[in-house]
Amino acid sequence: MINVIGFDADDTLWHNENLFLQTQDKFKQLLLGYHDEQWIDQRLYETEIKNLEHFGYGVKGFTLSMIETAIELTEGRIVGSEIQEIIDYARDMIDAPIEVLDHVKETLKDLSGSHTLMVITKGDLLDQETKVARSGLGDFFQHVEVVSTKTTETYQAVFKKYDIQANDFVMVGNSLKSDILPVLQCGAQAIHVPYETTWAHEEVTEKDLWNQGYLKVEHIGQLPELLKTLPTSK
Amino acid sequence: MINVIGFDADDTLWHNENLFLQTQDKFKQLLLGYHDEQWIDQRLYETEIKNLEHFGYGVKGFTLSMIETAIELTEGRIVGSEIQEIIDYARDMIDAPIEVLDHVKETLKDLSGSHTLMVITKGDLLDQETKVARSGLGDFFQHVEVVSTKTTETYQAVFKKYDIQANDFVMVGNSLKSDILPVLQCGAQAIHVPYETTWAHEEVTEKDLWNQGYLKVEHIGQLPELLKTLPTSK
Repeated sequence: MINVIGFDADDTLWHNENLFLQTQDKFKQLLLGYHDEQWIDQRLYETEIKNLEHFGYGVKGFTLSMIETAIELTEGRIVGSEIQEIIDYARDMIDAPIEVLDHVKETLKDLSGSHTLMVITKGDLLDQETKVARSGLGDFFQHVEVVSTKTTETYQAVFKKYDIQANDFVMVGNSLKSDILPVLQCGAQAIHVPYETTWAHEEVTEKDLWNQGYLKVEHIGQLPELLKTLPTSK
Repeated sequence: MINVIGFDADDTLWHNENLFLQTQDKFKQLLLGYHDEQWIDQRLYETEIKNLEHFGYGVKGFTLSMIETAIELTEGRIVGSEIQEIIDYARDMIDAPIEVLDHVKETLKDLSGSHTLMVITKGDLLDQETKVARSGLGDFFQHVEVVSTKTTETYQAVFKKYDIQANDFVMVGNSLKSDILPVLQCGAQAIHVPYETTWAHEEVTEKDLWNQGYLKVEHIGQLPELLKTLPTSK
């Protein structure tokens, strides 16, 4: 029987990817005198992927990647005030108001009466903790786990830490790669709530998804009804 | 009876502050044409403190602070290749070999037979997890908690999370501000193992320490003997 529900945070509980996209737009405007937008996007993405193993997910790594990309694409001609502008983007992102997605608050309120709710999210530790607090949703969650990656091993470690049986757990999130596939591989259940955009690095192919048997809702408000239909054991 | 021992990581289990100091030396060399060393140190420290609430502790925030300081101190005249050099420092810090401190490995081996050992450390999540793994000490620890700050509330949350009684817990670390005082305030015990240098922000005054009743060892190898002398309850 499902008694613990894990929620991804960014783009599941609140808007996030659009904040990165808005920042990336500003970044492209800054460099538009040097290169066209598509080329800037492509080089930034490559730098981000290269830096993931060093800097991990989150605003700080993204910012360092923007700075590196700017230096590379301007062949070092970028000036100090422009780099400062990029660092200011980072502070703006970290301070940006949290826009909780539709249906989230009432759904969490509903489910928190009957289930243990927890957040399992990637990103910078301090930034994610602050976002949970500022979202006004913190009281619905018994645990907040900020993790550096979301693999099968990550979820197994979380299950062990909180003494959770895979059979009792369902994960809810917008990323098939991070929130759904590794959870199914642990023998737990997973419910996909698509967000309007997905970062290229989080995309998975149809082949990865074939016959995986995860569930899907259009928005998080459909969660309580869906949970009632789940079999009590797998 | 003490059955859980928490260890700070940076400058308690392995060298860390000297890596920051070495990087700061390189940074000062880079800016020496613009300002004298003392002024660079002071401005960098002020920028770090200002940025703590946004970027938290760790290499990534330190790097963003170095870049900001460099732009400010050169009045924007710093060039792209020099900023790139600062970002390269960050990657070097993250990739630097872990130098485990003397006595650590044998002490952990000794204590892991009789106690539950855990790491409680500040810093960037991915970086700290990687350091635990690369240190070769990971197997001694049952839990690794990377936290964004170390206050009384932080320790209380860790106790709750792992169902630890304050009476059963002792914290071991080099920072009086982060590892000792807040732990004592929770009613748990704490053992100070000084490191050769302390970051200014972690320093506390004699007044803060007056009559706090924490214990102190010169090096971590003295821990097993000291633990035998602790009263079985407070």
